[in-house]
Amino acid sequence: MFISFEGIDGSGKSTQAKRLAEALRAEGREVLLTREPGGSPGAEEIRRLLVEGTGERWSAETECLLFFAARRDHLERTIRPALAAGKTVITDRFSDSSRVYQGATRGDLRGMVDKLHDLSIGIEPDRSFVIEIDPAIGLARGKARGGTEDRFESLGLSFQQKLATGFRALAQEYPARVRLIDGSGSPEDVAARVRAAL
Amino acid sequence: MFISFEGIDGSGKSTQAKRLAEALRAEGREVLLTREPGGSPGAEEIRRLLVEGTGERWSAETECLLFFAARRDHLERTIRPALAAGKTVITDRFSDSSRVYQGATRGDLRGMVDKLHDLSIGIEPDRSFVIEIDPAIGLARGKARGGTEDRFESLGLSFQQKLATGFRALAQEYPARVRLIDGSGSPEDVAARVRAAL
Ligand SMILES: Nc1ncnc2c1ncn2[C@@H]1O[C@H](COP(=O)(O)OP(=O)(O)OP(=O)(O)O)[C@@H](O)[C@H]1O
Ligand SMILES: Nc1ncnc2c1ncn2[C@@H]1O[C@H](COP(=O)(O)OP(=O)(O)OP(=O)(O)O)[C@@H](O)[C@H]1O
Ligand SMILES: [Mg+2]
Ligand SMILES: [Mg+2]
Repeated sequence: MFISFEGIDGSGKSTQAKRLAEALRAEGREVLLTREPGGSPGAEEIRRLLVEGTGERWSAETECLLFFAARRDHLERTIRPALAAGKTVITDRFSDSSRVYQGATRGDLRGMVDKLHDLSIGIEPDRSFVIEIDPAIGLARGKARGGTEDRFESLGLSFQQKLATGFRALAQEYPARVRLIDGSGSPEDVAARVRAAL
Repeated sequence: MFISFEGIDGSGKSTQAKRLAEALRAEGREVLLTREPGGSPGAEEIRRLLVEGTGERWSAETECLLFFAARRDHLERTIRPALAAGKTVITDRFSDSSRVYQGATRGDLRGMVDKLHDLSIGIEPDRSFVIEIDPAIGLARGKARGGTEDRFESLGLSFQQKLATGFRALAQEYPARVRLIDGSGSPEDVAARVRAAL
């Protein structure tokens, strides 16, 4: 089984991905928990180019190509071997993030994203959870985290609002795969909603 | 006018690109001399991921996506502004290198290269010079150069021979644009052949 967590910056994806991995491991499953951009040594090097620096460091088009380069490496070297070994793979972000960030928000590149996905990735998760949170809260959480990985947070609140709209539209587009999860309340509350939806 | 130099590793591309730039400047033209992978600050960062390390560091597919990310940045931030300002642009490698390295040698990815080119680049040089040299001589020159940028040289002589065949095929495919240049003899000899073909 291949599961992704999606949502705006600071929505709680990493928290929930980790909790779900722990819960499934406690049930005796072998789980690989991974993340994007990154998740393999090469993709982590590309990650640094993507998440640090100013928003204008790359155009939406170049950014899109870099995300798919990282995703291809992640898929080849981490995700596919784990699925082939019978593990459950949980990834913190996957192609849906490109559909929303580069496809519908940073640029109007949904056609380019779809072509790159078909050309280089091809597979979709079996289930994708979009954690929904008030964009102002997500942004405040992201800023509180600190560090240098703030390139997308630096694009501001209206950017996060557009992302939230984009993720909601994805759930309508892929009703069989994508589930919207209310991200309010404690991490335990959210984790219970994820388990109920799985 | 937009001109590219192409050919196997160590064939003399950089030497000839520089000589042509100097010759055209001496005639009073404004010339931008640039190179790939690289040619803009972002693309130079991607370059390091591509030309250093082992051959197997990236699959041909990931490599292809990284080359086009670098090329897109180079096109947007260096080539198009220079052409718009009326300059002659001379680039040391362009999409033909992807057609031959990733499209016909590292992988059988010509379809992917063509789709990425259409999706993210779109333009071709007005004239492309392929410098032809014995692959054994090219490889020896490349090794003599030293440094850490030897990822493609590390793939060996039979790889360089396949590249040479691939570049020759490109000249047949694009007869109006691509010119094969005999790369033997002194740099002056080769430069005279380039001028005659321009
Ligand atoms: N339900 C919650 N209530 C309060 N705080 C939370 C909740 N879930 C996560 N947090 C905190 O909010 C911050 C962001 O959470 P997390 O890192 O899981 O989000 P994310 O979606 O992975 O963010 P990013 O997009 O930046 O990677 C963290 O400090 C986390 O501890
Ligand atoms: N015609 C020539 N005769 C002898 N040596 C040459 C000639 N042209 C170039 N060289 C030398 O061969 C080496 C490789 O040349 P150059 O750097 O121009 O090749 P290149 O095609 O740009 O190589 P790379 O693919 O590694 O960038 C350099 O040391 C250069 O001085
Ligand atoms: Mg996270
Ligand atoms: Mg060179």
